[in-house]
Amino acid sequence: MRELDLVRRIREHAAAAYRNRSVVKGIGDDCAIVRPAQENDLVFTTDFVLEGRHFSLATHSAQEVGYKALARSLSDLAAMGSKPVFCLVSLAVPERLGSRWIDGFYKGLLSLGTRYKITVAGGDLSSFGSVVVDVMCCGQVQRNKAILRSGAKPGDFVYVTGKLGGAAHSKWTTRVEPRIDEGIRLSRHVSAGIDISDGLSIDLHRLCLESGVAAELDSALIPVASGATLDEALHGGEDYELLVTARPNARVPKALVTRIGTIKRGKPGAVTMDGRALPAGGYDHFARVRRVRI
Amino acid sequence: MRELDLVRRIREHAAAAYRNRSVVKGIGDDCAIVRPAQENDLVFTTDFVLEGRHFSLATHSAQEVGYKALARSLSDLAAMGSKPVFCLVSLAVPERLGSRWIDGFYKGLLSLGTRYKITVAGGDLSSFGSVVVDVMCCGQVQRNKAILRSGAKPGDFVYVTGKLGGAAHSKWTTRVEPRIDEGIRLSRHVSAGIDISDGLSIDLHRLCLESGVAAELDSALIPVASGATLDEALHGGEDYELLVTARPNARVPKALVTRIGTIKRGKPGAVTMDGRALPAGGYDHFARVRRVRI
Repeated sequence: MRELDLVRRIREHAAAAYRNRSVVKGIGDDCAIVRPAQENDLVFTTDFVLEGRHFSLATHSAQEVGYKALARSLSDLAAMGSKPVFCLVSLAVPERLGSRWIDGFYKGLLSLGTRYKITVAGGDLSSFGSVVVDVMCCGQVQRNKAILRSGAKPGDFVYVTGKLGGAAHSKWTTRVEPRIDEGIRLSRHVSAGIDISDGLSIDLHRLCLESGVAAELDSALIPVASGATLDEALHGGEDYELLVTARPNARVPKALVTRIGTIKRGKPGAVTMDGRALPAGGYDHFARVRRVRI
Repeated sequence: MRELDLVRRIREHAAAAYRNRSVVKGIGDDCAIVRPAQENDLVFTTDFVLEGRHFSLATHSAQEVGYKALARSLSDLAAMGSKPVFCLVSLAVPERLGSRWIDGFYKGLLSLGTRYKITVAGGDLSSFGSVVVDVMCCGQVQRNKAILRSGAKPGDFVYVTGKLGGAAHSKWTTRVEPRIDEGIRLSRHVSAGIDISDGLSIDLHRLCLESGVAAELDSALIPVASGATLDEALHGGEDYELLVTARPNARVPKALVTRIGTIKRGKPGAVTMDGRALPAGGYDHFARVRRVRI
């Protein structure tokens, strides 16, 4: 396939999806041009989805890879309580997969992108030995209103959206739903938040570390997905639910969350469950860590 | 190396570099937070640097890879006439390379970043079978003043900064300098622009395609780098000079550029040299195209 055709197809895909009016110029120049709405902060995140690490071509279709790549980054926007604006999509694929795979990838990505009103404003396309995806997402949030990891205080309650362990139980084959709407609704009430991408145990550890606090969980309160084990709910990862903290008197919408524990004074990052230390799943060595968000 | 240590080291690296005041919150949360200056447009670009494709571990040090990864994206900011603001760095590395390689990578990247006052505001770090880098850069430009590919008109003169073919002649081992300052100075005078990342022939073709025009080059005017051939100057790629067009009466700073040709009416994207068609180097098939900017 010729470059011109490839770019035209990707443009057509992107044009058929949502166009955010902040995006002045999308695909087709050296850079995308964005004119942010005033009185807003912008938030930015980027996430790899790597063949053999986050998916396998044997078990995931092109559409599923595209969906997953955007879902991961959208989940970070959700964790900040932000509204999606635009994304840049970097895609490297082996030549043998060809334009049909690329079409499927964009179809999956844009099915999710259209639902959450995010514009594909540009990116990079390269041939490479294995499939590598890196999706950068930008969201907007009212000035100074982004949910941070660092706002949790001793005495705060710990909450989680949805149920946990379902992704691990299904061997990470289900389509997750980024909690964009929930993040926006929760943002007015919470003191801190993070999305559960690598597992409740490690992501709560990360939140506590940034807040300089410890946390105690009650195992009986953890909402375990149907069929999953408590272990999968604690350490499984890729559920992409939101983990938030809020002052005890905050009017957190109860329909959105389950209370699972309490923030305490203690060694920053220390997490206990039923009074015993809860090791952060996979947290030991770089080789065993799925991903480091810097 | 433990995740905590890795993140701490990357934070330390980044903190020692330039901190743009638009970056409200950098490394350490789900997203970076940016508060853009009013009356500006923001421009965004992302570029892969892939092992075995853009560099080899046998011939490029970690510092050179880090430098190159940022230089490629900065060159896109230069092509828009924009001033660097912040970047997100996605890095995947084989475990065997370890923290020393990662340190070297950041050292190289930040040596360039500090010079051009760009803040590392976040990113992603993952272990993977080969080295994959994707650097997203954001720049700012006065509202409606970004240099576009699409502004060239018949009769405009075609200019290029610096000399061409040097990168290809050195087998892409030299450190290129992104033309940030030149882009900003040229932006008031030019009608269109692009950076020469893949070669003069293909990048002029791309500019003409977006502008709906053709171009004629004069081979005697092409500024060929010392030791390089005309062929390397035309098709070599990775020189990262700027290719711009301007009205004949524009006061383009002559010290910055060399005039090499003229924009004409004709088939959009058609480029001729000395009256004969100039095929865009490597432009034929996706497999032969180094990169597609979407």
